[in-house]
Amino acid sequence: MTRTIAVKSRTRNELIDITAEVSDLIRASGTQSGTCTLFVTHTTAGITINEGADPSVRRDILTALSRVFPEHGDYRHAEGNSDSHIKASLMGSSVTVLIEDGKPLLGTWQAIYFCEFDGPRSRTVLCRIA
Amino acid sequence: MTRTIAVKSRTRNELIDITAEVSDLIRASGTQSGTCTLFVTHTTAGITINEGADPSVRRDILTALSRVFPEHGDYRHAEGNSDSHIKASLMGSSVTVLIEDGKPLLGTWQAIYFCEFDGPRSRTVLCRIA
Amino acid sequence: MTRTIAVKSRTRNELIDITAEVSDLIRASGTQSGTCTLFVTHTTAGITINEGADPSVRRDILTALSRVFPEHGDYRHAEGNSDSHIKASLMGSSVTVLIEDGKPLLGTWQAIYFCEFDGPRSRTVLCRIA
Repeated sequence: MTRTIAVKSRTRNELIDITAEVSDLIRASGTQSGTCTLFVTHTTAGITINEGADPSVRRDILTALSRVFPEHGDYRHAEGNSDSHIKASLMGSSVTVLIEDGKPLLGTWQAIYFCEFDGPRSRTVLCRIA
Repeated sequence: MTRTIAVKSRTRNELIDITAEVSDLIRASGTQSGTCTLFVTHTTAGITINEGADPSVRRDILTALSRVFPEHGDYRHAEGNSDSHIKASLMGSSVTVLIEDGKPLLGTWQAIYFCEFDGPRSRTVLCRIA
Repeated sequence: MTRTIAVKSRTRNELIDITAEVSDLIRASGTQSGTCTLFVTHTTAGITINEGADPSVRRDILTALSRVFPEHGDYRHAEGNSDSHIKASLMGSSVTVLIEDGKPLLGTWQAIYFCEFDGPRSRTVLCRIA
């Protein structure tokens, strides 16, 4: 059964913490041991796992990506968001988290981030727990 | 059971749409709800999901990657394809797509791309549906 | 059941081959056909699959990443390892390998690498075989 997490971004580039939503879906599923596969259904957004403690880490990741793959560059795609497409593929569209004791097996500092690269928009993350 | 998708690339850098092949394998498997894990068995190729509509997006992704990781640079690997190896790791070698109603749950604009970074070659993508 | 692979890195940036450990876990599990999902529980390390033959490939990947995302740059995160966090997200924290005949279905040249970007440290890779 595929579940859905709705995400609303507020700026063009933004890492949005969805760890709580993922944990809630795992708890609600009753699965004690297994896997949780997350999938982003967009082409200008991705998903990644990184530090949840210091918000500067999120800022540094986004700034570094924009420095290397700037919004305005040698692009042919007419919508002006080629950088968003590139960043989406670099972060990737799926991640699989392991589950034990009804919880995602994340490290102490890890959080799951929806990666918005062409916001603000309403977005969807699919989730399958098995 | 592991299935195989054969891919033939025609240039050094190329994003090849394999969405139809993946959909066909899912349909043939009879799986209505589940996951499809795709795995590239090469070290100078990867797999990604991105826009299927405007071919300029594919061109812009490849051009931006080659600008940042050029073919000729400070490399020691003697085969002259270090950039291909780097790009392969950046795109990744596996992706998991969710399945409902016997179809891959892709967003409106999403297509699944085999990423050739050292073509032209004959390539293989493995596929497991569960 | 989640299994664990312990990794010890010796330098700041290092690709450590864990293919033998993964193969051992698959063999010990008795699984003949299935999937093996690997998950890194850290925010300054990742996992990737790339060439296992020539060590220059590993060197070239690490050097190119450090050239594009240098240790010292326009970062706000005070711990001095923003580049490590960025590289971790670029490589990704999970990969899924397919299994047949009790072995990982890797291509001839493929090896599974733990990617250390902020070593030396003691690290953990989680492994679920299904």
